[in-house]
Amino acid sequence: MGRVISDITISADGYSAGLNQSEERPFGDDGGDGWADKLHAWYAETPEENREEVDQTIAAKAFIMGRNMFGPVRGEWDRQWNGWWGDNPPYHAPVFVLTHHAREPQPMDGGTTYYFVTDGIESALAQARAAAGDGDIAIQGGATTVNQYLAAGLIDELRLHIAQLTLGAGTRLFEGVPPLKLEQVKSRATTVATHVTYRVLR
Amino acid sequence: MGRVISDITISADGYSAGLNQSEERPFGDDGGDGWADKLHAWYAETPEENREEVDQTIAAKAFIMGRNMFGPVRGEWDRQWNGWWGDNPPYHAPVFVLTHHAREPQPMDGGTTYYFVTDGIESALAQARAAAGDGDIAIQGGATTVNQYLAAGLIDELRLHIAQLTLGAGTRLFEGVPPLKLEQVKSRATTVATHVTYRVLR
Repeated sequence: MGRVISDITISADGYSAGLNQSEERPFGDDGGDGWADKLHAWYAETPEENREEVDQTIAAKAFIMGRNMFGPVRGEWDRQWNGWWGDNPPYHAPVFVLTHHAREPQPMDGGTTYYFVTDGIESALAQARAAAGDGDIAIQGGATTVNQYLAAGLIDELRLHIAQLTLGAGTRLFEGVPPLKLEQVKSRATTVATHVTYRVLR
Repeated sequence: MGRVISDITISADGYSAGLNQSEERPFGDDGGDGWADKLHAWYAETPEENREEVDQTIAAKAFIMGRNMFGPVRGEWDRQWNGWWGDNPPYHAPVFVLTHHAREPQPMDGGTTYYFVTDGIESALAQARAAAGDGDIAIQGGATTVNQYLAAGLIDELRLHIAQLTLGAGTRLFEGVPPLKLEQVKSRATTVATHVTYRVLR
């Protein structure tokens, strides 16, 4: 059976996004100083061979994401929105989007299909498992979704990319999650970020 | 002029201590599972040559700490308390303790003297600078004190030791600190912790 993994970029103070996420600012208010871009800048600034965790994660056979990661539409699906990632998203696999509002599956180019799950995180995981076969399942984000899965004890491996800034406010990884015992299975530094992989112990 | 450094052990979710610190439980409630010991276990479990940041920090020429790090006595000094570290504390230098309650300096063996500073963090830093000469000054903790100095823009270098557990609640590093730009000057892993040194950019 595949592992349930989560790969997330956070600030040194644990935030994955600022306050007031919007279509114009998918990672929230940046106080005018562009930190949202900086938070994720490590990926572009890192040599290809050092992006291994991310590249492994994107090779998962099914993905789960929160609706706020999927896009800026709130409430009913009263507007066509097919994710931030264009016609050929990088997933090439089923992506299960957690939402309170039903919507028909949305096939995209390259093998990605967005499925909209209205009956909770465990149902989404069961559907992702069925789709992934023996492959890994990635809890793709945002932090609120990762926190729900962590709190429910459903994540096997957590891959953190810690960027060199703090945000001071926003959506924080581990917020509201009961204490976890972790095993650090890998940790390494690039010049612009620290990468830590934890196994979540049961 | 020496640098102002801070060296602090935190959980993966950024806490340096749990709730309800007391004399019996200096790092707060541990929910019965001994995490407080685990938080700091990396030091004993790390080969001597891998403790370099801590060993450098403890070589600072003056130290500043909050009263809650100094001990469990609250309010007036109505009871003799000379720190957690015995008659010959590991500082071997002046230690400036932030408090609202005046007290005479307390000399200890081995060159440590505790001075009690009642007029704020900037005064404590000025006194530490005068004492340290060209040497480094360590903002020794706890996180509440480190946060005050970070918020005031008075820390040059932050040395984090990230332990392999989360706490979920307690005293959190960076809490209430406005966004910081950091430069990761060093990052490395031991088998039980990740060590990251940041320069705080102005």
